Amino acid sequence: RHVKFFFPQVTDAETASRAAMYYHSLNRRRSCRYFSSRPVPVEAIRNCCLAASTGPSGAHTQPWTFVVVYDAEIKRQIRLAAEEEEKINYERRMADEWKDDLAHIGTDWQKEFLEVCPCLIVVFKQTYGEKDDGSKQQHYYFEKSVGIATGMLISAINASGLVTLTHTPTPMQFLHRILKRPTNEKPYILLPVGYPSSHAVVPELTRKPLEDIIVEM
Amino acid sequence: RHVKFFFPQVTDAETASRAAMYYHSLNRRRSCRYFSSRPVPVEAIRNCCLAASTGPSGAHTQPWTFVVVYDAEIKRQIRLAAEEEEKINYERRMADEWKDDLAHIGTDWQKEFLEVCPCLIVVFKQTYGEKDDGSKQQHYYFEKSVGIATGMLISAINASGLVTLTHTPTPMQFLHRILKRPTNEKPYILLPVGYPSSHAVVPELTRKPLEDIIVEM
Ligand SMILES: Cc1cc2nc3c(=O)[nH]c(=O)nc-3n(C[C@H](O)[C@H](O)[C@H](O)COP(=O)(O)O)c2cc1C
Ligand SMILES: Cc1cc2nc3c(=O)[nH]c(=O)nc-3n(C[C@H](O)[C@H](O)[C@H](O)COP(=O)(O)O)c2cc1C
Repeated sequence: RHVKFFFPQVTDAETASRAAMYYHSLNRRRSCRYFSSRPVPVEAIRNCCLAASTGPSGAHTQPWTFVVVYDAEIKRQIRLAAEEEEKINYERRMADEWKDDLAHIGTDWQKEFLEVCPCLIVVFKQTYGEKDDGSKQQHYYFEKSVGIATGMLISAINASGLVTLTHTPTPMQFLHRILKRPTNEKPYILLPVGYPSSHAVVPELTRKPLEDIIVEM
Repeated sequence: RHVKFFFPQVTDAETASRAAMYYHSLNRRRSCRYFSSRPVPVEAIRNCCLAASTGPSGAHTQPWTFVVVYDAEIKRQIRLAAEEEEKINYERRMADEWKDDLAHIGTDWQKEFLEVCPCLIVVFKQTYGEKDDGSKQQHYYFEKSVGIATGMLISAINASGLVTLTHTPTPMQFLHRILKRPTNEKPYILLPVGYPSSHAVVPELTRKPLEDIIVEM
């Protein structure tokens, strides 16, 4: 069954002005690695996850789960496990080239922010699902679907006046274990969410100009 | 070099209200398969791509290229090549289960909208890059980075009052060929962008409720 698609049409000037404003708002986003412990409104986090879940997905399979952690003890476990992996990464697994490429960002294996921030959102991708009758539901393009939803989640966090870090303490299987997820789910990204601490700094960096990202024909 | 992170802090009530509004705005998005030929402002498309390009990326490598096609002849070539692949998909490559899962959406191999819509944005992922000295630049987590940027792009299109379809006419190598992209780039997604036609319809569908997407602990 199909229904009429209602989408209010606006003038060209309005379209252009909205796009410019949206770019301006997203362009303020930075990855934050220094969080205040100030709590975040639970309703806001729910609405950010709901916003992400409106994303398109292959055959509308919605292959995502958002695990939201407020509990101090679980955050601590995640911090310790992440630091264990990251310590090995920085000391042995990462090639020198990778460490050189990260030098300007100034990261190391310590992830204090995972415990300080009020909330962690762990995005899981569902590699398959379950039909109503209990049989296996294929998930088409789940990798892309979850990537797109994660982009919407980060946009929603930014639009709400909150900050986050796109974090991948690799390998991330410990998230599956600590959060006791089912076998069809795999960790995709770990997002500490909150407000920046008063002494938060970010690496100075520039973004590519228009001519380096767009080709028009 | 690091600089102070300036991010204006707002009240809890404001955070919650912004998140609710953002969810509301994204929740109006639907995939559109019936476009009007009404042109889109070039500035708006540029700002949507710029918005996407503000996304986070592994070691800030920004591994994306947005190819924007307005040219009628190139749109026609893309339509024909897409239909050629999709015809084989629907007739031979897709399992019956997949076709069953798509039945409620009502798609087939015909992709008239690729020619009717005023603009196509083809997102390419750069599997590696080039340093200033001409040597190879590794791109870390490029798949996730481009997925997240694509989510931001679709959000920006929606926020601008435009509509799109997340389209994957698989295999998508023809986009690489028709658009003459370099060997480090691979097509990630094809987005027809514009305004819906006056007779546009969408499949009636519901999105998962909060309790099916969020786990709080
Ligand atoms: C990675 C990905 C690939 C998709 N590929 C196609 C496609 O090739 N053709 C199509 O008609 N829809 C495609 N879709 C759109 C989905 O069918 C659509 O998002 C889903 O039915 C939910 O509808 P909605 O976007 O209106 O909420 C794709 C979506 C995603 C995320
Ligand atoms: C897929 C992905 C994984 C990332 N992983 C990490 C990470 O594990 N640790 C970290 O500090 N930053 C990580 N980042 C953040 C990038 O370093 C950051 O986005 C980049 O330096 C640009 O800075 P900006 O986000 O402030 O624009 C990741 C980003 C992406 C997209």
